[in-house]
Amino acid sequence: MVKRNPNIAKLPAGYLFPEIGRRWRALLERQPDAKIISLGIGNTTEPLTPHLVEGLRNAAQTLGTAEGYSGYDDDPKGQALLQNLKTKLSDKWYHGRVSPEEVFISDGAKCDCGRLQMLFGAEVTIAVQDPAYPVYVDGSVIAGATGAHDPERGQFDGLVYLPCTPANAFFPDLSALPRTDLIYFCSPNNPTGAVSTREQLRELVAFAKRNGSIIIFDAAYAAFIRDDSLPRSIFEIEGAREVALEVNSFSKPIGFTGVRLGWTAIPRELAFEGGAPVGKDWSRVMNTLFNGASNIAQYGALAALDDEGLAEMGETVGYYMENARIIKEGLTDLGLTTHGGVNSPYVWAEFPGRKSWDVFTEILEGAHVVTTPGSGFGPSGEGFIRFSAFGHRSDVEEAVRRLKESTKP
Amino acid sequence: MVKRNPNIAKLPAGYLFPEIGRRWRALLERQPDAKIISLGIGNTTEPLTPHLVEGLRNAAQTLGTAEGYSGYDDDPKGQALLQNLKTKLSDKWYHGRVSPEEVFISDGAKCDCGRLQMLFGAEVTIAVQDPAYPVYVDGSVIAGATGAHDPERGQFDGLVYLPCTPANAFFPDLSALPRTDLIYFCSPNNPTGAVSTREQLRELVAFAKRNGSIIIFDAAYAAFIRDDSLPRSIFEIEGAREVALEVNSFSKPIGFTGVRLGWTAIPRELAFEGGAPVGKDWSRVMNTLFNGASNIAQYGALAALDDEGLAEMGETVGYYMENARIIKEGLTDLGLTTHGGVNSPYVWAEFPGRKSWDVFTEILEGAHVVTTPGSGFGPSGEGFIRFSAFGHRSDVEEAVRRLKESTKP
Repeated sequence: MVKRNPNIAKLPAGYLFPEIGRRWRALLERQPDAKIISLGIGNTTEPLTPHLVEGLRNAAQTLGTAEGYSGYDDDPKGQALLQNLKTKLSDKWYHGRVSPEEVFISDGAKCDCGRLQMLFGAEVTIAVQDPAYPVYVDGSVIAGATGAHDPERGQFDGLVYLPCTPANAFFPDLSALPRTDLIYFCSPNNPTGAVSTREQLRELVAFAKRNGSIIIFDAAYAAFIRDDSLPRSIFEIEGAREVALEVNSFSKPIGFTGVRLGWTAIPRELAFEGGAPVGKDWSRVMNTLFNGASNIAQYGALAALDDEGLAEMGETVGYYMENARIIKEGLTDLGLTTHGGVNSPYVWAEFPGRKSWDVFTEILEGAHVVTTPGSGFGPSGEGFIRFSAFGHRSDVEEAVRRLKESTKP
Repeated sequence: MVKRNPNIAKLPAGYLFPEIGRRWRALLERQPDAKIISLGIGNTTEPLTPHLVEGLRNAAQTLGTAEGYSGYDDDPKGQALLQNLKTKLSDKWYHGRVSPEEVFISDGAKCDCGRLQMLFGAEVTIAVQDPAYPVYVDGSVIAGATGAHDPERGQFDGLVYLPCTPANAFFPDLSALPRTDLIYFCSPNNPTGAVSTREQLRELVAFAKRNGSIIIFDAAYAAFIRDDSLPRSIFEIEGAREVALEVNSFSKPIGFTGVRLGWTAIPRELAFEGGAPVGKDWSRVMNTLFNGASNIAQYGALAALDDEGLAEMGETVGYYMENARIIKEGLTDLGLTTHGGVNSPYVWAEFPGRKSWDVFTEILEGAHVVTTPGSGFGPSGEGFIRFSAFGHRSDVEEAVRRLKESTKP
């Protein structure tokens, strides 16, 4: 018979978010009337804004006409749509820092991370921030780039973990680091909500350049930065084009978690040893294993990059950031120390000396509020809880009320 | 610096379809006025039908309302949509042969093939039909499951090629085959247009059962079977649930090449050595590396499975199959021997003793018609040309006229 893939067998327990779902459902089985509020999963909750809906509706209409129909993006109309979107991202998102042919459109940042792991293969060495979005680690494990899981340390052998904690202001001590081929780096950070400064990213780029490393920069929350002094893209940093690629997504800033539209930007200068361009291999991987983002989602993304779309994006971001403010204030009132939640939709709360899953359970049982246990993002997340600002305002307010009422959150 | 992934370095030249595009553009550069007709790439061309457009438009509208909005499919509305689609596929497509929880919704069959290669990993042995849809081979190479490319044989070391030619009625001689872990099998076949009979698939299932192999059955063209005696799913064959999984797609039967909606069905009984269910690992791979098909595409697929949607699907299939009839008749008039094109949208024409790329060039230059060279699908495709029935009727008729006019196609 066929043997199970040993790399998949390395993954312990369930993927974080399905595990949270299981515990949520278990509570509902015991208390079917519980009105559970989720500040957990990072799923957007607010309706798509009018200009986006119009863009998507028109797309469906267009696909029903002989003049407007497009299929795979290698037909002339599909090509034109794709080219249009790449150009608009280059102009309106990257302000020319990345050219249209350096932008690769996809169905989302998470899916691109999985394909990037196929691109780089099993032989690379990898560093990840700790805590980190699970796909960087779990995907690297599936791709065969790690050793076994060490339950003692809560880490995979062969991966370099970069602790990002209040003690180092959520930026790793680069001087103490070994060289790795890849460095996953996420800012604004999921889950800590930390946003790296320009100076920090300069350090990171210089470090990568010294070591001949490639930075996989996850900027999926860039639109939540409202302080213009903070960098929204790694490509705002001089020299980054030679050492970094960037994944990004419309999931959070315009509520496209369900619609599915993301992209990866790979500069021409980024190359492997010997000079082979990374973008060329990426193109091969995308052509072989992917078949394009939904053309309807592409039309929606075009609408989002119109002036009206960008204005609506600002409103959507503003709505969630007001939620973040309410959560942060509520937790602070409770005497908790929090991080993030200012230029990022995640509030990262300290529960010193506690186990994250215990606090998660306590909040779930006591306040009927779903959160995300910090330890699910890596060992340095132990003792923290992530509160997501993605929720209806009334739910967020009610959740904060309940947290304050339940004796000890 | 970072080393290039040695598996990707194994892939010779370009991916087939971009290579065709390059030659197409090269002709246009030399002859900018050439009116080129493509019977090449298998991209659908006809507008989406009215009921589907309505379904997609309503989806966009729904996502703009507080009651209807859904994000990731782990929110209650996303879950309900997904569950609804799985149930409808189980009922209307599989007639109960596969249960809803055995259906995994995705953005397409090609993308699922790539993720299946991540699921099974680098250690498995693999057999592919020859010729075959390129992703089975190229994706296996990227996943590290093959040796180097042997330019002499036009094959990758370590892969087992199953020649499917007129000599064996496009069904491999199983008695001569070594055991492999995986067997990729596509019926109706891309590119040969061959459709396996019930008896042949019974043999295949028995062979897999004897050897403890898993069949990856690609049924993306099942809707083009109009002869009810031919099996439309591997799960019509007794015992298949223990040895097969099936990938499928709405790309071709309803023109969703651009909209993106496919699925993989993995029966509960399908297990690895030791009994671990394949579906459970698949679920882990999908949760980790994928984030759901576009919810708009899911609503579109629901519409396609309504009575009106199914009727429209029949019309779309009928349109393309009439194209296939016209192409097949035209080529037969020219004295060529053809295969397929009856219960499949591909016509596979013999050009004995010729090189496929030479014939491709001759047809492109002489008739300004783009085809697909058979050798692009594997060494046993040498001397064949694939004509795709996906095209506007007038283009198909004009292409056949030109083929007849150009001295020797």
